[in-house]
Amino acid sequence: MATGTCAALLEVRALTERLCATLTPEDSAVQAMDDASPTKWHLAHTTWFIETFALPRLCRDYQPVDPRFGYLFNSYYEALGPRHERPKRGLLTRPSLREVADYRQRVDAVLAEAGRDLDEETARVLVLALNHEQQHQELILTDIKYLFGQNPLRPAYREARALPAASSPAPVRWMPQDAGLQWIGAKEGRGLDDFVFDNECPRHRVFVEPHALASRPVTCGEYRDFIVDGGYETPTLWLSDGWSAVQSNGWHAPLYWRRAGDSFLLTTLEGERPVADDEPVCHVSYYEADAFARWAGAHLPTEEEWELAAREVPVEGNLLDSDVLHPRPAPSFSSSARPAQLFGDVWEWTRSAYLPYSGFRPFEGAFGEYNGKFMMNQMVLRGGSCFTPQSHLRATYRNFFPPGARWQMSGIRLARDLS
Amino acid sequence: MATGTCAALLEVRALTERLCATLTPEDSAVQAMDDASPTKWHLAHTTWFIETFALPRLCRDYQPVDPRFGYLFNSYYEALGPRHERPKRGLLTRPSLREVADYRQRVDAVLAEAGRDLDEETARVLVLALNHEQQHQELILTDIKYLFGQNPLRPAYREARALPAASSPAPVRWMPQDAGLQWIGAKEGRGLDDFVFDNECPRHRVFVEPHALASRPVTCGEYRDFIVDGGYETPTLWLSDGWSAVQSNGWHAPLYWRRAGDSFLLTTLEGERPVADDEPVCHVSYYEADAFARWAGAHLPTEEEWELAAREVPVEGNLLDSDVLHPRPAPSFSSSARPAQLFGDVWEWTRSAYLPYSGFRPFEGAFGEYNGKFMMNQMVLRGGSCFTPQSHLRATYRNFFPPGARWQMSGIRLARDLS
Amino acid sequence: MATGTCAALLEVRALTERLCATLTPEDSAVQAMDDASPTKWHLAHTTWFIETFALPRLCRDYQPVDPRFGYLFNSYYEALGPRHERPKRGLLTRPSLREVADYRQRVDAVLAEAGRDLDEETARVLVLALNHEQQHQELILTDIKYLFGQNPLRPAYREARALPAASSPAPVRWMPQDAGLQWIGAKEGRGLDDFVFDNECPRHRVFVEPHALASRPVTCGEYRDFIVDGGYETPTLWLSDGWSAVQSNGWHAPLYWRRAGDSFLLTTLEGERPVADDEPVCHVSYYEADAFARWAGAHLPTEEEWELAAREVPVEGNLLDSDVLHPRPAPSFSSSARPAQLFGDVWEWTRSAYLPYSGFRPFEGAFGEYNGKFMMNQMVLRGGSCFTPQSHLRATYRNFFPPGARWQMSGIRLARDLS
Amino acid sequence: MATGTCAALLEVRALTERLCATLTPEDSAVQAMDDASPTKWHLAHTTWFIETFALPRLCRDYQPVDPRFGYLFNSYYEALGPRHERPKRGLLTRPSLREVADYRQRVDAVLAEAGRDLDEETARVLVLALNHEQQHQELILTDIKYLFGQNPLRPAYREARALPAASSPAPVRWMPQDAGLQWIGAKEGRGLDDFVFDNECPRHRVFVEPHALASRPVTCGEYRDFIVDGGYETPTLWLSDGWSAVQSNGWHAPLYWRRAGDSFLLTTLEGERPVADDEPVCHVSYYEADAFARWAGAHLPTEEEWELAAREVPVEGNLLDSDVLHPRPAPSFSSSARPAQLFGDVWEWTRSAYLPYSGFRPFEGAFGEYNGKFMMNQMVLRGGSCFTPQSHLRATYRNFFPPGARWQMSGIRLARDLS
Repeated sequence: MATGTCAALLEVRALTERLCATLTPEDSAVQAMDDASPTKWHLAHTTWFIETFALPRLCRDYQPVDPRFGYLFNSYYEALGPRHERPKRGLLTRPSLREVADYRQRVDAVLAEAGRDLDEETARVLVLALNHEQQHQELILTDIKYLFGQNPLRPAYREARALPAASSPAPVRWMPQDAGLQWIGAKEGRGLDDFVFDNECPRHRVFVEPHALASRPVTCGEYRDFIVDGGYETPTLWLSDGWSAVQSNGWHAPLYWRRAGDSFLLTTLEGERPVADDEPVCHVSYYEADAFARWAGAHLPTEEEWELAAREVPVEGNLLDSDVLHPRPAPSFSSSARPAQLFGDVWEWTRSAYLPYSGFRPFEGAFGEYNGKFMMNQMVLRGGSCFTPQSHLRATYRNFFPPGARWQMSGIRLARDLS
Repeated sequence: MATGTCAALLEVRALTERLCATLTPEDSAVQAMDDASPTKWHLAHTTWFIETFALPRLCRDYQPVDPRFGYLFNSYYEALGPRHERPKRGLLTRPSLREVADYRQRVDAVLAEAGRDLDEETARVLVLALNHEQQHQELILTDIKYLFGQNPLRPAYREARALPAASSPAPVRWMPQDAGLQWIGAKEGRGLDDFVFDNECPRHRVFVEPHALASRPVTCGEYRDFIVDGGYETPTLWLSDGWSAVQSNGWHAPLYWRRAGDSFLLTTLEGERPVADDEPVCHVSYYEADAFARWAGAHLPTEEEWELAAREVPVEGNLLDSDVLHPRPAPSFSSSARPAQLFGDVWEWTRSAYLPYSGFRPFEGAFGEYNGKFMMNQMVLRGGSCFTPQSHLRATYRNFFPPGARWQMSGIRLARDLS
Repeated sequence: MATGTCAALLEVRALTERLCATLTPEDSAVQAMDDASPTKWHLAHTTWFIETFALPRLCRDYQPVDPRFGYLFNSYYEALGPRHERPKRGLLTRPSLREVADYRQRVDAVLAEAGRDLDEETARVLVLALNHEQQHQELILTDIKYLFGQNPLRPAYREARALPAASSPAPVRWMPQDAGLQWIGAKEGRGLDDFVFDNECPRHRVFVEPHALASRPVTCGEYRDFIVDGGYETPTLWLSDGWSAVQSNGWHAPLYWRRAGDSFLLTTLEGERPVADDEPVCHVSYYEADAFARWAGAHLPTEEEWELAAREVPVEGNLLDSDVLHPRPAPSFSSSARPAQLFGDVWEWTRSAYLPYSGFRPFEGAFGEYNGKFMMNQMVLRGGSCFTPQSHLRATYRNFFPPGARWQMSGIRLARDLS
Repeated sequence: MATGTCAALLEVRALTERLCATLTPEDSAVQAMDDASPTKWHLAHTTWFIETFALPRLCRDYQPVDPRFGYLFNSYYEALGPRHERPKRGLLTRPSLREVADYRQRVDAVLAEAGRDLDEETARVLVLALNHEQQHQELILTDIKYLFGQNPLRPAYREARALPAASSPAPVRWMPQDAGLQWIGAKEGRGLDDFVFDNECPRHRVFVEPHALASRPVTCGEYRDFIVDGGYETPTLWLSDGWSAVQSNGWHAPLYWRRAGDSFLLTTLEGERPVADDEPVCHVSYYEADAFARWAGAHLPTEEEWELAAREVPVEGNLLDSDVLHPRPAPSFSSSARPAQLFGDVWEWTRSAYLPYSGFRPFEGAFGEYNGKFMMNQMVLRGGSCFTPQSHLRATYRNFFPPGARWQMSGIRLARDLS
């Protein structure tokens, strides 16, 4: 029986499968756009990751389940050779979902057999695989949401659940934060309890100007005011590339908002229903977050500002573990001196480009391609969303997407200079 | 119990389902390219066609199974209102394959209940639906072949079957054909036994120059000679648009040919295996057919020339009913004065543009969009293929595809002037 | 002093230069779109054509003016080797317009020196060069019109000239034409007086159904009725590819029509002014001509029908020699039994695809690429326009453009079946 | 007679015209790619800038030379209304080069008449216009170089000039730089002597890690070693987006390098000649600079690191004022403790994204669009090039281009961590 790291990994993988339980084979096979992957591909890719990097360490003379899977399920590791083109993942109707389930079981069986005495590097690989699996849990949900969002039938991922009524969140307060010379980033760690990605390191000093953060994320109601005020028709509110994106894509509201007379409907994992004013706005691009901030007389925080605010806050909130699968309104009253909802609900765009910290060293070997090579043309998001597993997050965690991406659970927190 | 036209339609529809029996739900859901459709979509669309055009005639107060299906499964009938974008058919993971099977059964149940006494227009609609269903049978096979052909695993649609060995076909003979003023085309007919499409009408006269047709289609071995002789590197053999297609698509052989050392492998519905020299070459574009003909010192026949040769020939051969699902070599010996393999094996490109015959009148109403609006930028193919149902074909039948299309069962028959 | 063929060619070339007299060096250098060429390129290309094909025959040991010009000014002759990419002709700011003028003079000087005793093949080449030069005269005008039409300043190619007022054309009459078995096409001829292109040959028989032609082309006023009646918003009037073109290009009127309140302005070579209802409509694509015909309850003629009507009509009318440079209204009264304006004013779209006649043989050698390789994806136009030199035209002349082209002087004549 | 600011501006504008003296009207009219502009457009746009922003302040009731020029020559100021599409600037053959020269003269005449007593805001506008004119001087040269570089004749902008032979530069030394908490950026200033752009402000503190800079930029010889070592074929050396750019653009060397047997030719403003090993490499994208650095075991400096090294260095070197118009080799010997060639020769890519400094405030009014809205998807370059006017530069100056841009004078300086 697996214990320790292997057991933890198997537990995470069991959750992956529970997340897919409502999906049909058809749902699992289709690629909704180039940037998304089929569920089945996610299920196979995370398995291939373990099979390729960990099983040969656990099992002398390990023979891959199918030697052709490396070509099909390698995502982007150039060091491992050629692979199936990303935009064509949806053409892989074979292996079938059932065969992929078998593949998962066979790899899990090896993990289940593994003893407790792992050498340090093997343990590290398994911990990385666990975190990798968790990242794909979030991607499975965002990608399936995108697929269903394009189906005129607006299928639901699951039936709607009753939630306690939330009263309206309090107006935004501006909360001054720590400034001056500060430490941010993380010390290296690859264990089950101290794991961090290479892109969070090294711990280093930054000089931060006096500033305040908004007490909570921007709500749908506030964002609608921006729309009604002509936000999407006012070029001077936008970055030049953002205005081009508005025009070429015909953006007039966040992704998944559909105009219905004077109001808007919203596609959620539980189907389509009216936009709820009190919920944090979600599925906006960086360009929209930035334009909203300019309209509101504020700006987005830097990733350092965000991290300093979060470093003393417990990693709690509306995360995947809550099983709500949608952002929730902020509390109607809070005496806290700390911003609410830093963790969970929506990823928060920062105005920091995703670049290496000074002194950044990529993971060794093929893992060096995990993060470092994507450090261009992307912006940092912080804090996790209602699709992010709690154990996956921390204050130093850096997520990143191109500024035009909208299908992730991306929202807005405002900041202001104090000087 | 259904009789007559309804029974015939139900029988055809039962074959459609048998053709899909080996496909998984995943196979049925994916769209392999913009020009192809998912199997599931074909299954639903043909059903929607009957439900929309025929059931209200058979059944007073007929209520559609799902009123939203019109939006999803209308192919291109502008007269029936807006519809789901063609390149996004693969996003429709719902309704599921099972739900589509239910849809088919519910519509078939109405057909099965229908009495024998159909008014003439209802009978016409059902006959059209039957022919429409047959066209989609061929498309289901070509589209699934294309999907599997892009999967690096090269899945087989079915297990390979043993076939009697064929001896090598005789060399091509040039067979002089009827010339002068000739009648071609068909008289209108909408019954089960005399049905023709509007694009085959009216019967009319053409003047045909003296010419000869090749005794059989071009074989893979002959086509390989063209490749080896530098056919794909010699611009003066090609139409200007054809040469552009060669260069921008990197064509160097027919679709589904894959170079393996000095020889070629071929993807078939029974998996990948070596190219067989004696089989008719298939999956060539018009551009390739035309370039081959020029290289061979010949040209392609006009559609009139083809039709005149075929009008006295029985509609027999390697058609869908043979269940071979691949072109077969021509007979090694034939004393016939008629060209072999005019029907079946491969569709034969003609050098005729797909245009209306003088006096062409489209079908009435929405059916007018069936054929007429596609009469531009396409070339006529004649004779059916090993994917075409025998009862669907006739000498006057006009198929049509753009000159760059390669995923259909398209081959080459040569012609020569005699003057 | 040049005589005979050389003299005729020099005279044509002198006209080319007069046509360019009002253009600045900037005007001459710019390429308005991929399908158009800079004036300077036309001037150089026609010169290169003579230099390459004729001068080595006229002049032993002829040395090219600049050996690099072959790469720059070869249009599409694969047999002559690689060449500058077509869409990049506008990048060739050097050689300058002045240098190109020098190039022309140096080549013309050789022509001027040539004696009268040309061998037959040399004479043929010069006659072809003369016809080639004339084709580029028309292209120079259409391409510069397109360039000016995209300049918000709407520059005029020349000052507006006063023309005698025209009274309104008579309503269309339907004129029955010859039918039955008929000869069309041309006998081969390569002399100054009997030159025809290879694509007009051979003379051959066709069977023509009873039909009538409209007594004159469609006018702007008639075309506006189509617009006002919702022609551009009614998909069932259009070919499928035509409707796609309407939507993707945002067509709502012919090229060069600009809405101004309730009426339309028109860009001409003499600047922008209101659309004149009585003039033939011009700058419509095949798709628009076809949709208009369907709306009008008619169709376009075949090229054979057009040619039979024109074969007894003198080649006269509003051609380049009239120096009007814009279509003129049809006569207000005519007792003629023949359709008016068959020659000149506007090229008339036919519903015939541009394909080889049975028995077509391309010119020998590199000239074989002149016409034959473009016989795909294009439609035939007949009759010349107000930009076409009179001596260049004849009843058998076949012009051709893709069905979406609008920058040529293309208009509409309707036809009707009589049966 | 103009004095002070107006006189300075007129002097700068006179240089603009001298820079264009060798260009033909054709050269001036053509747009070599979407990102470049025709010379004539640069000449008119800088004039429009003065006419729009300054002349109404200098001249009561100023009437624009042509009210339509605002539409044609507004670059990107949304606040000033709609404008001609950027990729179509090359279609504006009218106004002609001569008319644009007249336009410049008429605007200059107003400047020449202006008195010395300008109000402060007017003076600021003129100073901005002067700096703006200087930026377009560099763009005129880079854009014309790009145009000539695509002409197979490789025309020269001017005749080659003899330069004193340079001996080979010394090997790179690594020079430790200031670290810790440091001030960078500029205080606001809008006068002739203290002008800075808004994007250089405010002056602020950053924390800098210990590091060393290379004593000189990377040379062509060093870059060729990277090529020979397979740099362009080794994906793991590249950012993911960089590797995509290599593959989709077919990059195998810097822009303007053309392989000739075993060596490379280089296009310069003085025509094509062999690559000189000792010169700084130029016309590389950020992706290439970054890949080279990784191959060399180093990285690119941050913009702060660059600025700290440059702040005590005089703004001298191979700048536009040297009139060399090409990068020169570094000195063969230097005892300086400071890196050579920080200013001039080539712009140096930094690994800093072009983002607002904390506390950034855009210029007021329409000038707010000058810099701020481009702060996305671009990287910072520092130090000017041999095309940059000396009086335009300073240590705090931030240039910016997308990471894939190669037509600017962009080179590489390496940095290393010291810790």
